[in-house]
Formats: sequence, C-alpha cells, structure tokens
Amino acid sequence: MTTFFKPEQTFLSGSKTLSRDYYLLPDFFAREIGQIFTRSWFCAGHVSRIPNAGDYFVLDAYGESIIILRDQKEEIHAFYNVCRHRGTHMCEETEGRFSKTIQCPYHAWTYSLDGKLIGAPLMKDVADFNKEEYPLHAVNLYVWQGFIFLNLASSPQPFEQVFQPVLDKFEGWNLPLLKSARRIVYDVKANWKLIFQNYNECYHCPPVHPQLAKISPFTSGENDLISGPFIGGYMSIEGASSLTLSGKVCALPVGDLAQEDYQRVYYYSFSPNMLLSLHPDYVMFHTIWPQSPTQSLIHCEWLFHPEAFGRADFHPEDGIEFWDITNRQDWHMCELSQIGVASRVYQPSPYSPREALPAAFDKNYLQIMNQEQ
Amino acid sequence: MTTFFKPEQTFLSGSKTLSRDYYLLPDFFAREIGQIFTRSWFCAGHVSRIPNAGDYFVLDAYGESIIILRDQKEEIHAFYNVCRHRGTHMCEETEGRFSKTIQCPYHAWTYSLDGKLIGAPLMKDVADFNKEEYPLHAVNLYVWQGFIFLNLASSPQPFEQVFQPVLDKFEGWNLPLLKSARRIVYDVKANWKLIFQNYNECYHCPPVHPQLAKISPFTSGENDLISGPFIGGYMSIEGASSLTLSGKVCALPVGDLAQEDYQRVYYYSFSPNMLLSLHPDYVMFHTIWPQSPTQSLIHCEWLFHPEAFGRADFHPEDGIEFWDITNRQDWHMCELSQIGVASRVYQPSPYSPREALPAAFDKNYLQIMNQEQ
Amino acid sequence: MTTFFKPEQTFLSGSKTLSRDYYLLPDFFAREIGQIFTRSWFCAGHVSRIPNAGDYFVLDAYGESIIILRDQKEEIHAFYNVCRHRGTHMCEETEGRFSKTIQCPYHAWTYSLDGKLIGAPLMKDVADFNKEEYPLHAVNLYVWQGFIFLNLASSPQPFEQVFQPVLDKFEGWNLPLLKSARRIVYDVKANWKLIFQNYNECYHCPPVHPQLAKISPFTSGENDLISGPFIGGYMSIEGASSLTLSGKVCALPVGDLAQEDYQRVYYYSFSPNMLLSLHPDYVMFHTIWPQSPTQSLIHCEWLFHPEAFGRADFHPEDGIEFWDITNRQDWHMCELSQIGVASRVYQPSPYSPREALPAAFDKNYLQIMNQEQ
Repeated sequence: MTTFFKPEQTFLSGSKTLSRDYYLLPDFFAREIGQIFTRSWFCAGHVSRIPNAGDYFVLDAYGESIIILRDQKEEIHAFYNVCRHRGTHMCEETEGRFSKTIQCPYHAWTYSLDGKLIGAPLMKDVADFNKEEYPLHAVNLYVWQGFIFLNLASSPQPFEQVFQPVLDKFEGWNLPLLKSARRIVYDVKANWKLIFQNYNECYHCPPVHPQLAKISPFTSGENDLISGPFIGGYMSIEGASSLTLSGKVCALPVGDLAQEDYQRVYYYSFSPNMLLSLHPDYVMFHTIWPQSPTQSLIHCEWLFHPEAFGRADFHPEDGIEFWDITNRQDWHMCELSQIGVASRVYQPSPYSPREALPAAFDKNYLQIMNQEQ
Repeated sequence: MTTFFKPEQTFLSGSKTLSRDYYLLPDFFAREIGQIFTRSWFCAGHVSRIPNAGDYFVLDAYGESIIILRDQKEEIHAFYNVCRHRGTHMCEETEGRFSKTIQCPYHAWTYSLDGKLIGAPLMKDVADFNKEEYPLHAVNLYVWQGFIFLNLASSPQPFEQVFQPVLDKFEGWNLPLLKSARRIVYDVKANWKLIFQNYNECYHCPPVHPQLAKISPFTSGENDLISGPFIGGYMSIEGASSLTLSGKVCALPVGDLAQEDYQRVYYYSFSPNMLLSLHPDYVMFHTIWPQSPTQSLIHCEWLFHPEAFGRADFHPEDGIEFWDITNRQDWHMCELSQIGVASRVYQPSPYSPREALPAAFDKNYLQIMNQEQ
Repeated sequence: MTTFFKPEQTFLSGSKTLSRDYYLLPDFFAREIGQIFTRSWFCAGHVSRIPNAGDYFVLDAYGESIIILRDQKEEIHAFYNVCRHRGTHMCEETEGRFSKTIQCPYHAWTYSLDGKLIGAPLMKDVADFNKEEYPLHAVNLYVWQGFIFLNLASSPQPFEQVFQPVLDKFEGWNLPLLKSARRIVYDVKANWKLIFQNYNECYHCPPVHPQLAKISPFTSGENDLISGPFIGGYMSIEGASSLTLSGKVCALPVGDLAQEDYQRVYYYSFSPNMLLSLHPDYVMFHTIWPQSPTQSLIHCEWLFHPEAFGRADFHPEDGIEFWDITNRQDWHMCELSQIGVASRVYQPSPYSPREALPAAFDKNYLQIMNQEQ
C-alpha cells in the first residue's frame, strides 16, 4: 500500500537552494553531460510516434543525433545517425518512414533497419575489410510502459534495476496503448535543473497559475516518492473534473482507474529528463533537453486513450491549451530564476516547507555529481 | 583659480597607444570587471529619471541587474534585482512605478521600497528563519550633483574622497535641478577604452566632424584636468552660440554661468564610465557599459534647465540632433579602430601632441590594472 | 612526360579518415592558423579583378584584412588594412579604386599606393618621429600564372621553391590573361579539410551529382600528382563537350590545348586554400577561407578567354550554373559530414580505393601539423 505524506512532513528544515556555479559554469555542465546524461536511462519519446514498420524519428540528445525506428519485424531500435564510412550525418528529416534500408547520401553505404552494413561500393577491394565489422552504432534501448528509454553508456546499469521503484507503479494507466494528440517543443532560456525544481513544487501556484490554483489547491498535495531519482505524488482536483480550460473531462478515461484517481493529478519526475503527469482523461509527459548551462529544450506531449480519438466527446485541445498556458507561465519563472541566480550576490537560501521535493531533487543531484568517477 | 594648458604643453613625447591585448582578450576584460568596474564609483543616471515616490528604473551594469528607486520618503536606493528566496529576477520592465512594495512574481515574497522583507508565505514554519536577515541586497549609492553614483564593492572608498578633485567644480551649472529631454542608447562594436580615447581628443575632428570643426576649431582647446581618473577642459565656440544644428542656443542657459562659459564647451571624462559635456544651454552626459572586449553600450542623455521646458524658445532637438550625428561619427571611428587593432601587425604607435589626454587616460588605466591586488 | 595512375594504383590499403578532434577543437584550429595558414602561400584571387591603376579589393584572410591594389606603375601590392597611427581599419568597401593615395578616415594619415606614409598632421612636432619608419605593413606577394599569392610569414620560403612541382605545369592554359565572368561566395558550415577531401574524390559522384556523373564517369579519372601539397589529375568528359548544363562548350577554348584536353577536366588542389579546375572552355577556381573549426567561406570564380566576352557563342552561365548546382551538392555533403564527425562514436574509418587523394591530403596535412615548431 502506498504511503502519502504532506510535503511539510518530509521537509528537512535548513534545506537550501543550490549555489550559482551549478546553474552557470560550462565546466559543471560538461560534468553533468559526462556523469549524468550520458550514463543514465533517459526518455526519448513514446512508441505511438512510430506505429508502423519503417517509421522513424530523429532525436538530438546531449550532442548526439539518434535515429529511433521500428524495423520490419516491429522491433524498435536506436542508432547513432553516423555513417561508418566517413562519419556522415545520414538522416536529415526529423521523422519519416524508411522503405527497407538506410542509405548514406554521400557515398551510398547502405544499412538494413536492424543496423547491418549491407552495401559498401568498391570496399571489397580493401584488404581486411569486413562489412560485419561496420554496423551502425546501436544505442541501448528499453521500452517501458510504452516509453522508449535510451542509455548512451557502453555498459549501462540494467533498466529494470534502476527503475525498480516505479517499474509496476502505473499498471492501471494503460500507458503502452495511449496515442499522442499533440507535441509542442519549448525553447527555454534556463538551466534544466530549474525546470525540475519548478515542476516539483506548487508553492508558486497561487502567484503564477491563478487558473490552476483555483481548481487544484496548492496545499492539497501529498507525495509518495520523496527521495532519489524518482519523486512525486498527487494533487487534488476540486470543483472541476480535470485540468482543462472548461473544467470538464476532455476524453475517455485513459485507463482502468481507481475511484480516487478521478479527482487527482499525479505528478512524477524521473531524473534526468522526464516529467510524467497523469490526469483522469489524459497523460502529459515532458522530456527535457539541456543545450547549455542557460538553455533547455522541452518536448511536451499529450497522450489519450486510443479509442478516444474520433469520438464526439473528444476535445483534446481543452486539456492541451490548459497546460500550454500553464507550461509557459512556468518556463517564464524558470527564465527569471536563471537571470537572477547569475548575480554575484545570489547565495543558497532557505527552501520553504512546501519545497520538500525540490530539496530532494537537489540532494539526489549532488549525490550523483559528487560520486567518485 | 583654474590653470589651463594647451594639450601640446602637457604632452609627454614618446607616448604610445596601448597594445592589442587590452582591446581583445577576454582575460583582460575579466580583470577590468574585477579590478575596475566592480570597485569604482560609476554613474547610473540622473535623478530626474525618477522624480516621484515609487519611480524606478532598472540598470544592467557589469553583469548585474540593479533596481534604482525613489522610496515613499523620497530617498533614493539601489538594490540588486534578485529575490532572496530562490534568486529570481523580479523586475522585468526597464522602468516604472512601484505602488508600495516590490513583489517577486515567483513565490510572492514581498519587500518594502527600502529593501526590507515584509512578506514570505509559509516561511514562519522554518526554524531559525528571520525575515530581518533577508532584506534585498543593497548597492552603495551616492548622489552627486544630481547624478546617481553606485559602487558594487563591499567596502568602497568613500565617494567624496575619490571625487575630491571635481567635487565642487560644477557648482554654477545647476546640475541637480536639470531635467532630461532625451535618452539614446547606442550599441557600439568597440572596446570601452576606444570610446574614452576618442572623447578625449579633437585631432580627429577635421576629418570626422566637419560640422563641429567649423564652429569649434580643433586647435582651440585647453585642459585643466590633465592626469588621473578625471581629465578634460574646454573648447571654444566660434561663429555660433552653441553646438546645435542651427548654431543658435536652443534653450535657457542651464545655470548661472561666467561670461566666458557662453563661448565654451567643457568636456570631462570621469573613469570608468562617464563623459560630461557642458554647453551654455544644455548638458549632455554619456555613460558607457562594456559588454565584452569588443562591444559597449552607450547611454547618452541631454539635460536642460527645468524652466526651459514648454517655452517658445525651447528647441532641444537642435542640440540633440547635432550630437546624435556627431556621436555616430565617433562610434564609427571607434568601431574601425576595434577592427584594426585586432590585426597581428598592429603595435603601439606614437600619439600626436594633440592626443595628450588619451595618453593620460591610458596611463591612469594601466596604473589601476597593474596595481597589486 | 606526365605519368598518370588510377587512384586504386596509388591507394595505400589501411588508410583511414582523420580523428574527430581535427574537425572540432578550437585548439587544433588555432594550430592550423599558426602552423599552416599564416606560414603558407595562399591564393588571394586573380589579377583580372584589379585591371586598372588604383583598383583594389579587400580580402579577409585568417583574421586579417588585406588591401590588394594595383599602383600607378601597374605594380600589384598587398598591405594590411591598418593605419600606423592608432591602428584604424581604413578601407571599408570590399573593392573600389583609389585616386592616388590611401587616407585613414580617423586622423587623416595618408599613404601612397606603394605604402609610404606621406601625410601625418602635427606629427612633425614629435621628437624622433620619422615618416619613413611608418609605411603600411606590406604582405609578401607573388603573382603566378595570373593568380595573386600572399604569405603572412615574416620570412616565408620562396614561392618558386614551394610551387616548384607545378610552376610550369599549366603553361598552355593562358591563365595570366583570362578574365573573370562571375564570382560566388558560399558560406559552408563545415571544416575546411572536409572541402578538400570532397574535392579530391569522385567516389561520391554517382549518389551526389547524377548530372555530372552522367557526362564524366567517376571511374574515368587518373592522377599525376599523388602526394604532397599539390595533388590531382583529370577525369574524362564523355558524351558531351564540356561540363555545362547543355553539354556543349560555352566559350572559346581558354588556351592552346593538346588534343586530349578537349575531353578532359583537370582537377588540382593546392594546399592550403586553392582548388583549380581546368575545362576546355573555362577555368574555375575556388579559394577556401576557414572561419572556425566548423565554418568555411568559399570563393568560386569562373575565368574565360578574354576574347570570348561579347561573342555570340559566349554562354558563360551554361558552365557557371552547372558548377553552382554541383558546388552546392558538395557543400551539403561537407555539412552533413561535419555534423556526423562531431558524434562521440565517430572514429577513423577505412577509405575506399577511390579515395587515394583524400588519404594523400590527410597525410600531407598531418605531416605539417606534427612538424617541430
């Protein structure tokens, strides 16, 4: 049985914000890339983005371009978008469908959809050249609950081991079968950690989100995951049926929900790049892509029950618009924080009791950054 | 009694221009920020910009955002634009009027206009948290002759001590009461020192400013401040009554001037960021804001007698336009110098006898840069 | 007698592409500027660009702005675009004609077209100042076959010594007398070496240049210069008379060609910045200007027989358009390579036998980069 706590109950008095170097210095950012992002399992997207054999999308992740595709046998693969001959970037489109092969446009080296080199003109005359030794570079991949997770490490920790605390947590939510109605990319001039900290507290809701605060009181939340890489809990929906502009539900229930879930939104953040927000009628997820100490791209996607599409009671924009407005309010605060923490007078300052989760996020982050290499 | 000298009299033969590193290297620029700009009294603007209680403007200075305001008791303050909670940048507008408080938009922490923290929701539950310990960070401030000077050092030298050489020099000019008619911001692709050097000589006037050279002969100047952080003197107005497009005065005399001042323009540069140009009928001042080794913003403002406004003989544009044209001619030369000194073949070269003040500026600059830290 | 080889004959099996650092690191780029570009003879353009006395053009080369002019005695000079007084950048136009002098716009110092300082207002009063000691800084210059070569070193190796392998190679081609019909500047987001590698092989022609591959089969080539700073050879023209959109010749023959030259295009690359492509009816040459590890400007110019101009059978666009299309196809591949080699998984990989010249280019490059300083 899940145990929930008010944030105040888990708040460690004396918790302070991170020092400015963590938000500004290129050296720290490089360490984050090396110690966190290129060693962790990160969410690349949802399987509904590539429903058919041959479908692919291209993801820019931590300086790498990665092709994620569904092959002829319906298996999902991820490959570096780099030809094994002269290193050419092969796929220029963001998404599309391969017929049966991936061909490099420069010298026509050709690969099958499972990554094997199957054509390399004139290379047979090169002594000791074996096509078998030049497949596309594969990226470690694990599909969990319909979400495609990747890991750029050469020998990553097994996914199931890392995700153990949440592995079976969302069984009722039908996540593998949901379908996306919309994807929005936001360009935010803020450090990625400010976005996690913002997501993990609702102390800012009354001043920043008057609309949200009205139907989901900021003191209503309780958390069940309160430390480590996965943190979060729920907030109540009051005087409305979902978080939508109209206040009504905008689609079929996403899954087979418990009674109390119809009046709750669950918010979980999965370090280092995913935010998962479960509403009765839709699931929103963000993936966060640090570009520099001071800039992040955020992909936000809204998933619905596959049978909701096409029905008369399907009004996805009602929920999408609600969150698009709320998202932009949040990013704006993150950008103001980024400017302010760059000041020479900024110093770590006390968190409030309602900021127990940001404090937990920081703690987990510092632990990883300070690990022996 | 003031002693004036022709530039030639004070010129030290053998003086040479600065070497290229001073105009190009990020390291040198960082040293300038650390040893000059964040330790010196610099001009932030004129009090006429915030005439009423609650009025404020926001200044970007050396990487810091600073709120300068007039409080309910008419006292002028300067604060870092940084909330003491999560470091949020609070004021986004360049200028405006506070009702009675400054409120952070993120979590609604609230400050009085003299900087005290007067509201911090839920923080009463944090042990050992005292609002008194979290006022806005104040910036050292001194109002001299209507000009607001700031200093970012923790224990700056007293203003009166530093400004002793010019403290009472401009008593007759009515400076505290003047009012601004116009402010122009120029974005110049040149090192800030090139702008000071340009201001401090009129050797370039015949080729660069034909209009100015006609009514203020470049050989007419004499200087009374010839070394140290404050340097300058006057040039004569001949065949005209002021530096205006029409050649006529464009407003009431700014103050109670001596007879000879009606045919003179006084030019003084105050290191590290101010140029003060006193004409019979208006006062122009520049403040210079280094952005990088190769870029500077320049704020230029024109002040007039408060009673001049609204009169039939008030034609401020006649003087403003004259100098806007002249300013742009100067900035263009500074930009050409910036490009040229970046060449590997550029080397320190002889100044002419008419460049005694640029040589004095360089000397004072090098002295500060070479001081033991 | 020239000896030609099929690329396969000169290919050293086991040759691999360069490692990624050479394409990415600012440190390596700085070493290239210091060890290669500022020490080598590089092509600045063709004499036909400044046909008359006083004509000049301004070239940006490796961080320097250089004025190249024809003086009153028809002699060609190159000078740094830097005034000897305050270092001002003097010429702002890209090209033009001087009357008889070069005058600095800042303080009117004046130079004759052979670089002597002939006017310096007020400087006669400076002790020990001799105008003779302040001429414009000259750049080493050698005109070879109508091409203007420059060298920024203080004591460069003699041009004839360096260019010995090709000094008399193009005698029949009438190069000094040709005239330019067009110049195009391309801005390419790729390292300069990728452009050389691309030019030196036609393994990519079938996938990248279908039009070119049709009339100049990629297996038809033979090379006579196969190592060192100058490499290249020819490819055959088949089923057409020249490389033009129409397939017909577009102008008079450029020179007194041998019979076989009417069915050949000769391609030579001269390290570090020139590509020379000789067709029966026109000569195309590229000069390559590295801007950063990841960006290069490319100037491409098309030269024709001086008597071709104005004739009814003169259709220069037929050849220019053909190559403009082909150039852009090439730059696009270079840009894709630049993106790809930035991946952490990119590693040096085997060249094909048809890439003997890129391998030779890399070898010569590494030799220079690894020389003792």
